[in-house]
Amino acid sequence: MIRVAVVGYGNIGRYALEAVQAAPDLELAGLVRRQTSLGSPLPELTNVRTVQDVTELGKVDVALLCVPSRVAPQLAEEYLWKGIHTVDSYDIHGELADYRQTLDPLAKQNSAVAVISAGWDPGTDSMVRALMEFMAPCGITYTNFGPGMSMGHSVAAKGIKGIKDALSITIPIGTGLHRRMVYVELEDGVPLEQAAEAVKKDPYFAQDETYVIPVDDVQALMDVGHGVCMERKGVSGQTHNQHFQWEMRINNPALTSQVMVAAARASMKQRPGAYTMLQIPLLDFLPGDPDELIRRLV
Amino acid sequence: MIRVAVVGYGNIGRYALEAVQAAPDLELAGLVRRQTSLGSPLPELTNVRTVQDVTELGKVDVALLCVPSRVAPQLAEEYLWKGIHTVDSYDIHGELADYRQTLDPLAKQNSAVAVISAGWDPGTDSMVRALMEFMAPCGITYTNFGPGMSMGHSVAAKGIKGIKDALSITIPIGTGLHRRMVYVELEDGVPLEQAAEAVKKDPYFAQDETYVIPVDDVQALMDVGHGVCMERKGVSGQTHNQHFQWEMRINNPALTSQVMVAAARASMKQRPGAYTMLQIPLLDFLPGDPDELIRRLV
Repeated sequence: MIRVAVVGYGNIGRYALEAVQAAPDLELAGLVRRQTSLGSPLPELTNVRTVQDVTELGKVDVALLCVPSRVAPQLAEEYLWKGIHTVDSYDIHGELADYRQTLDPLAKQNSAVAVISAGWDPGTDSMVRALMEFMAPCGITYTNFGPGMSMGHSVAAKGIKGIKDALSITIPIGTGLHRRMVYVELEDGVPLEQAAEAVKKDPYFAQDETYVIPVDDVQALMDVGHGVCMERKGVSGQTHNQHFQWEMRINNPALTSQVMVAAARASMKQRPGAYTMLQIPLLDFLPGDPDELIRRLV
Repeated sequence: MIRVAVVGYGNIGRYALEAVQAAPDLELAGLVRRQTSLGSPLPELTNVRTVQDVTELGKVDVALLCVPSRVAPQLAEEYLWKGIHTVDSYDIHGELADYRQTLDPLAKQNSAVAVISAGWDPGTDSMVRALMEFMAPCGITYTNFGPGMSMGHSVAAKGIKGIKDALSITIPIGTGLHRRMVYVELEDGVPLEQAAEAVKKDPYFAQDETYVIPVDDVQALMDVGHGVCMERKGVSGQTHNQHFQWEMRINNPALTSQVMVAAARASMKQRPGAYTMLQIPLLDFLPGDPDELIRRLV
């Protein structure tokens, strides 16, 4: 059994505990949280070993870093130095290639494996983009997100003065463009026009068609369902008009943590180094005998 | 440049020539055909070096075996013994795992790489099946083929006594079940009822809802367009109701040969041995600098 520590207990961490426990070849070593001593232990964690330092968990093969992207790189380094494999769902698209290059020598030096950006975008969507591209090398791929809550946009809207709480929903309008529906709870006396203008000027929203809608209770609208529709029309060899489409409707944190669990398994089968999901064979993400899997899936 | 020989000039071989010529990192070494001396050379092949034996082509890195599945294994062995990588689109699902195991030691012994079953099913569909399964390990995947021509079923129908020519179209009726629409040209005096009964009793058709329709000219109905719709509803971690769908509408031989070209490229990046597409990282199927690809696709 592969011994796995879940690090962090936010949205992803909660689902990661479930996903590790559901995996036939993974064993939960425990949960690592910064503030285990604060307040009384959560009732759902009574049967989960919870510690502040991973070394308290004994042998740990892989750590699932269920933390915000900005924090992940430093944490990954700490774990790799301990010789523990790491999996994160680092989602800053513009920086992940450099991040991988930073971790790669460190992982090799410690005979460990890091799998970065193991979520659905980046992650499994990236795999589908690569698949579509080698099936039709010439053409355009559109990634259409939603409908679903955008965490980054919601946090950005919530950070605007006069907005007490916010939920930004991403609506696909085709060809990779999106409309933002931003539901806001305003501070007393703040006019909607003022808040709406501030939202629309924010860099997160400035490029997109954005609607700001006042509501009494943002929490009453919360739903972690999300989705994507990726499309490519392109050319295979010299034959045009080849059409491909990938679509999913999913619980967002449940899928992210499931992908991280699959990447944890895959990390055990790679040579030391840092990897994106594109650099790991699909078979390695699945449990069981390779020849049996080939017989069943190919 | 990777030097590639196309072996065989049937449906797939024709498109493979185009796909090799369209690839930025591949160079066509030539075409290997059994019957180069029969008749006058085909006009479209005037600029293609055509030989009967691959050794006449000088250095060849990879051979694309564009031949029927029953012939592929023996041919793969011949080429591997010469130290030439092989790519085939072997499509007998029940036998491909054993076929890979047979080629694997042979490939290793000759420091060569064989990529088997590199088409769309088996092939890219297999990759999607693996992807869907690690995203939602519990659940059911349905592979719905068509609408499109089934080569195997057409050949089977054509082989029945009293049928001069036949085209079998696969129609998806959902949940992985298919209807067969069989268009037949009958020999003079053969009653439709008799031919239809024979078709429906054939092992290729016996399990499916099958319609036999007489036509004057089967060739006038030929279209190599095909498609698939794969669906999975399953459980990520312990969260149910996750939905995934992969759909494509494609020119069948154009896609198959394009996938073979991508596999030829990937073969150059693997250690000696025999592989299915599930055992090769997605990145290896694409041309270009890996870090640049990661930056663009992940």
